[in-house]
Amino acid sequence: MEGKDLYDLICMRRSCRAYLAKQVAPDLLLQVIEAGRMAPSGMNVQQCHFIAIRKQELLEKIRALMEQIVANLDATTANPMLAQSIKLAKVGKHNFYYGAPTLIVVANRRDNANNVPDSAAALQNMMLMATAVGLGNCWINNLRWNGDAPPIRQFLEEIGVKQDEAVYGALALGYAVDAPKTALVRSGNVVDIWE
Amino acid sequence: MEGKDLYDLICMRRSCRAYLAKQVAPDLLLQVIEAGRMAPSGMNVQQCHFIAIRKQELLEKIRALMEQIVANLDATTANPMLAQSIKLAKVGKHNFYYGAPTLIVVANRRDNANNVPDSAAALQNMMLMATAVGLGNCWINNLRWNGDAPPIRQFLEEIGVKQDEAVYGALALGYAVDAPKTALVRSGNVVDIWE
Repeated sequence: MEGKDLYDLICMRRSCRAYLAKQVAPDLLLQVIEAGRMAPSGMNVQQCHFIAIRKQELLEKIRALMEQIVANLDATTANPMLAQSIKLAKVGKHNFYYGAPTLIVVANRRDNANNVPDSAAALQNMMLMATAVGLGNCWINNLRWNGDAPPIRQFLEEIGVKQDEAVYGALALGYAVDAPKTALVRSGNVVDIWE
Repeated sequence: MEGKDLYDLICMRRSCRAYLAKQVAPDLLLQVIEAGRMAPSGMNVQQCHFIAIRKQELLEKIRALMEQIVANLDATTANPMLAQSIKLAKVGKHNFYYGAPTLIVVANRRDNANNVPDSAAALQNMMLMATAVGLGNCWINNLRWNGDAPPIRQFLEEIGVKQDEAVYGALALGYAVDAPKTALVRSGNVVDIWE
């Protein structure tokens, strides 16, 4: 693969926040997860733990648990970017994974000093692969921020997160409702070069 | 680009720890950095700051500063994986970026809650792009672990790291001495699927 093709793919990846109800085909799901599994890890520890939730009952359960946490946030003191989520949560309409039919949770060991970057590298690979195979996707942080809240933690252990693991990110995955968007302009992410 | 091509590229990316002296062509360097700039960031804050060091004098300076830190580690209590580095550092032969002609430092704001994952996503994109354009590369963590040690911090500020920024990763970049290796088998990175 040429650099140009990769660059186009990187630019095509956009956060998708509206999904069709149609479930992701199993072979595509595995392709996405395999891309994550092949990401590097510090000292090659390979401690990412991918848990794909596709069962509607489980998805609804974690949605409702998260909604309750968000509904209880104080809109006057919380991050202003959460204002809309808080409003929706208070009326039972908040979905932190945007109604995607598949949610891939990425856990890692708490005692792995590279747990956050290892998980992020896997997520980036998965987002690129999802984009390459025509799936909408969105990096989800809520389970990272609220994964230790008791009801969320209990749910996570029920789906297989181990005692010594925590969640460092997740990926919403499905077929996008909207047509692909053009790349967002980067005005930040500045560059200095010392020649 | 097809999923298969991306998967092959992902598998082709391997940590390169021996580089030719030849400097990376400027257009390839920019291609690699642009791939990092186009990575996503939480809340789209775009706060990665890429600093490419290509000046031999600066590369040697940071090498020597880091070597001094590693030489002073206690081999009996440090991570056993550092034993070889400590031994080399004590005799003035430790190079944390493996002698690459270019080192791309990735800084981000300390108050950005997503500074580590945002930097890691940018690094993953850069590693894939470097691989696609035929450059050896290796994710480097030393500046993340030791970036606040006073002599290192002073150096980082001299090259442009801002007061409110810290370093969350770096990339060694150059032409590999050795032929490409096959992908490392992943026996970890386990997967659970709830259908």
